[in-house]
Amino acid sequence: MDEARYLKNVWYVAGWSSELAPGDKVARTFLEQPVVLWRSSDGAVHALADRCIHRAMPLSAGPVDGNVIRCPYHGLEYGPDGKCVKIPAQDKVPSSARVRAYPIVERQGLIWIWMGEHDQAETASVPDYPIHDDPKYAWRSAHYPVNGNWQLLVDNLMDLSHLPYIHANTIGGNPELHFKTKTESEKLPNGVRVTRYMPDSVPPPTYVDAGGFTGRVDRWQEIEFEPVLIRIHTGACDAGTGAYEGLREHGFSMRGFHGITPETATTTHYFWSMATNKLNDGMPDEVFEQTARTFKEDQDVLELQQLRMSEDPTGTMIDIASDVGGRHTRQFIARRLREEATATIAA
Amino acid sequence: MDEARYLKNVWYVAGWSSELAPGDKVARTFLEQPVVLWRSSDGAVHALADRCIHRAMPLSAGPVDGNVIRCPYHGLEYGPDGKCVKIPAQDKVPSSARVRAYPIVERQGLIWIWMGEHDQAETASVPDYPIHDDPKYAWRSAHYPVNGNWQLLVDNLMDLSHLPYIHANTIGGNPELHFKTKTESEKLPNGVRVTRYMPDSVPPPTYVDAGGFTGRVDRWQEIEFEPVLIRIHTGACDAGTGAYEGLREHGFSMRGFHGITPETATTTHYFWSMATNKLNDGMPDEVFEQTARTFKEDQDVLELQQLRMSEDPTGTMIDIASDVGGRHTRQFIARRLREEATATIAA
Amino acid sequence: MDEARYLKNVWYVAGWSSELAPGDKVARTFLEQPVVLWRSSDGAVHALADRCIHRAMPLSAGPVDGNVIRCPYHGLEYGPDGKCVKIPAQDKVPSSARVRAYPIVERQGLIWIWMGEHDQAETASVPDYPIHDDPKYAWRSAHYPVNGNWQLLVDNLMDLSHLPYIHANTIGGNPELHFKTKTESEKLPNGVRVTRYMPDSVPPPTYVDAGGFTGRVDRWQEIEFEPVLIRIHTGACDAGTGAYEGLREHGFSMRGFHGITPETATTTHYFWSMATNKLNDGMPDEVFEQTARTFKEDQDVLELQQLRMSEDPTGTMIDIASDVGGRHTRQFIARRLREEATATIAA
Repeated sequence: MDEARYLKNVWYVAGWSSELAPGDKVARTFLEQPVVLWRSSDGAVHALADRCIHRAMPLSAGPVDGNVIRCPYHGLEYGPDGKCVKIPAQDKVPSSARVRAYPIVERQGLIWIWMGEHDQAETASVPDYPIHDDPKYAWRSAHYPVNGNWQLLVDNLMDLSHLPYIHANTIGGNPELHFKTKTESEKLPNGVRVTRYMPDSVPPPTYVDAGGFTGRVDRWQEIEFEPVLIRIHTGACDAGTGAYEGLREHGFSMRGFHGITPETATTTHYFWSMATNKLNDGMPDEVFEQTARTFKEDQDVLELQQLRMSEDPTGTMIDIASDVGGRHTRQFIARRLREEATATIAA
Repeated sequence: MDEARYLKNVWYVAGWSSELAPGDKVARTFLEQPVVLWRSSDGAVHALADRCIHRAMPLSAGPVDGNVIRCPYHGLEYGPDGKCVKIPAQDKVPSSARVRAYPIVERQGLIWIWMGEHDQAETASVPDYPIHDDPKYAWRSAHYPVNGNWQLLVDNLMDLSHLPYIHANTIGGNPELHFKTKTESEKLPNGVRVTRYMPDSVPPPTYVDAGGFTGRVDRWQEIEFEPVLIRIHTGACDAGTGAYEGLREHGFSMRGFHGITPETATTTHYFWSMATNKLNDGMPDEVFEQTARTFKEDQDVLELQQLRMSEDPTGTMIDIASDVGGRHTRQFIARRLREEATATIAA
Repeated sequence: MDEARYLKNVWYVAGWSSELAPGDKVARTFLEQPVVLWRSSDGAVHALADRCIHRAMPLSAGPVDGNVIRCPYHGLEYGPDGKCVKIPAQDKVPSSARVRAYPIVERQGLIWIWMGEHDQAETASVPDYPIHDDPKYAWRSAHYPVNGNWQLLVDNLMDLSHLPYIHANTIGGNPELHFKTKTESEKLPNGVRVTRYMPDSVPPPTYVDAGGFTGRVDRWQEIEFEPVLIRIHTGACDAGTGAYEGLREHGFSMRGFHGITPETATTTHYFWSMATNKLNDGMPDEVFEQTARTFKEDQDVLELQQLRMSEDPTGTMIDIASDVGGRHTRQFIARRLREEATATIAA
């Protein structure tokens, strides 16, 4: 694995809308570039290189003042487009005085950032996640720092065969049940989809509690990768009521959103949300906390994995049968990385 | 900025006299060289390379015993001149058994060290700071570790236009007032002087409290760099009573001493004292604590600045109008560094 | 000193038998190689490379299950010989699926590991330490992490002239007494022996308390190095009763075992035990605690020494008179390192 490579021309999750009220700012590193995210008084979110042009001071240490952010050291002020608009004690601001501004789109509770070439940023290509706006769903979100390369987190989520091992104490369940279930992996134009169906099966207790099932169910796990996020839809309907033909509105659904944004070659921002329908009073604390505990278990695993891989980056690794979805995703990512590299050379 | 370069043939502050009673020692690194400072029973301060010739043990971990310092591992003893004077269980001590001794001068409450070529150390060239011995002044001192290159601290002190931003909650004051004040920067034979005068102005509350002013005042800020320390004299006299002609004895004076000693390329010893006249009962705790808090704010800024500069050492930086004093000082230092480099080659 | 070199074809202490009950495992790094030590349900101890062949996950994070250890991520199982015996959801396990297994011998309370070439591991060459099995002795053990190169710990133990300095507050005693005692160093076929005799001397208080002496004694200190452990036998008999002719059963004996296993170039596993005879009720807490405190003092010294040596690895070091035993040991180790290097080239 070439850890130091990132997809550049994609929209990455930079944060949650709920993190930034007007006047707030936060420092984050994406793809090894320090960025300050801030929301101006007019409500818009902006992203600038987090380094003042004067003396390299992080702008994120300074205050947002109306529609500018001010360097805390000598008071230089920057607008949303990165242009310096004020240098104290100096009449003119040279036009070269600016920091890089990164395109930002905010929708469906998510703040998306474009770290690639500016002229290729198209708002239309921002990934869609209508669940966050759907009144039938209750959802909550979190931001986890992960001490591992971003592709390790992709691997983790594209291959749920780790559930009975890593998550034995949370959502794991019986290993045998997991391995009897056939896994289908399908290449998509812009990603990979992994599907596992468990027709006419006994519903797990959480499903019974939340979904009100009284008999056997048709269960599904659908995992869909596109660069660089993963949507996981799991759930069940009463057996034979059309779940596999797309009739699922009457069933119980859990929908996980997993935004995966590289911070450095060995650290990753993990922005996740969990949504479920059939919950009239919002998401109960216990469901959120169990999900949070589960993803914390993954976080610990990735850290240990990264440790060994950093100690010996050239150590061999072998694939096993359950890797099919992960392998397709690795292949997809490798191809996209090559395409970006070629495009850069041609340009 | 070439971080890894230091001025060698200058006297640096190594510590405060008050830090070392007879029999005390302290380990400090100056210009990347580990040094043990110790005071023998005869009252003199000495500085030796902090590494025993036998097995590299730091001498600073051992005791001072009369006029020797003893290695704590196998008991080798060293005199003030670095000569090993005792090797246990061995009759003769070879004359080659010695560690480097650094010239030390102690005066006016300060311990000065010479890290350069031994034969160029002249006691007469130790910087003078009579304020510490002047009974008209009360003063207190501190030693701050700064996680930043030494030149960042020089920049900070030579350009007080950061006061209204970094120190808004302590000594800052109104930004507009600061920028209306004309700054003069003057090159000296051995440094740079920056002067700011505020004639016939309203005195700030602290000045009124301490200086007893009832009307308008003539204020001054005088900042003087010589390698490698900065003296800052601020104060006020009743307007029109001769402050700008040098008649200041009747006024209120605050005198800051700022000894700046590189530890490594990215860390610096900051030895500062604050002295004021007109204080019959010594320096009040609140004045000292406000000063300490102010310099702590600078410490935090330099650390953030260094962080960004270490991440991207080649990132560009631009100068602004208020940098005139800092720029002169940078130029002075760059010239002295070149001169030292040339002298080394010629030697 | 070439820190990065280790003796490979020797038995190293990997741990204490008492550390691992059936089903337990522990992660340890030896000679820069991460290893998992585990005890299967049949009571045997095993050592495997601590990195799953699938995705580099440390096996030590997984459970021991009967006679296999299971990767906690995707459930691959490994037997004592390092062969993967199960890959979930996969019918066949390829024969290439295996991790390195290290030879292990467990005897006399010690777990020994062979980090060298597999076919040169001979059980007969495991160092003997019958004291641990001798009912006349009571003993207790510990495992100290030392932040220093392994040869620094060897130096420390082969030259006890540091006792009056480092251990002045514990077992130190009078420096003059130490230096009047003649030290003999003898080269052995597989190591070095240092001997110090103190005939007809006044016994120290601890000896009087534990040994019940009423008059003068014949004392001895015998330190024996073989790669890579040190046995230290100290004790006394009533004067003139044959201690120096080998008649010591009636006397008081303290026997230190010092297993020295490199972890990395700058860190070392220190496995030590202390045994004494003449103690009917086992080793008293105070004797063990004083010993532990003493070795903690050594640990601190080695860390400081390593710090200086890492800062300047090429700095010179000189030998002194009391280094004779340490110098012989250094020479022995250097020769063995050369022999191993030559054998590797010839092979």
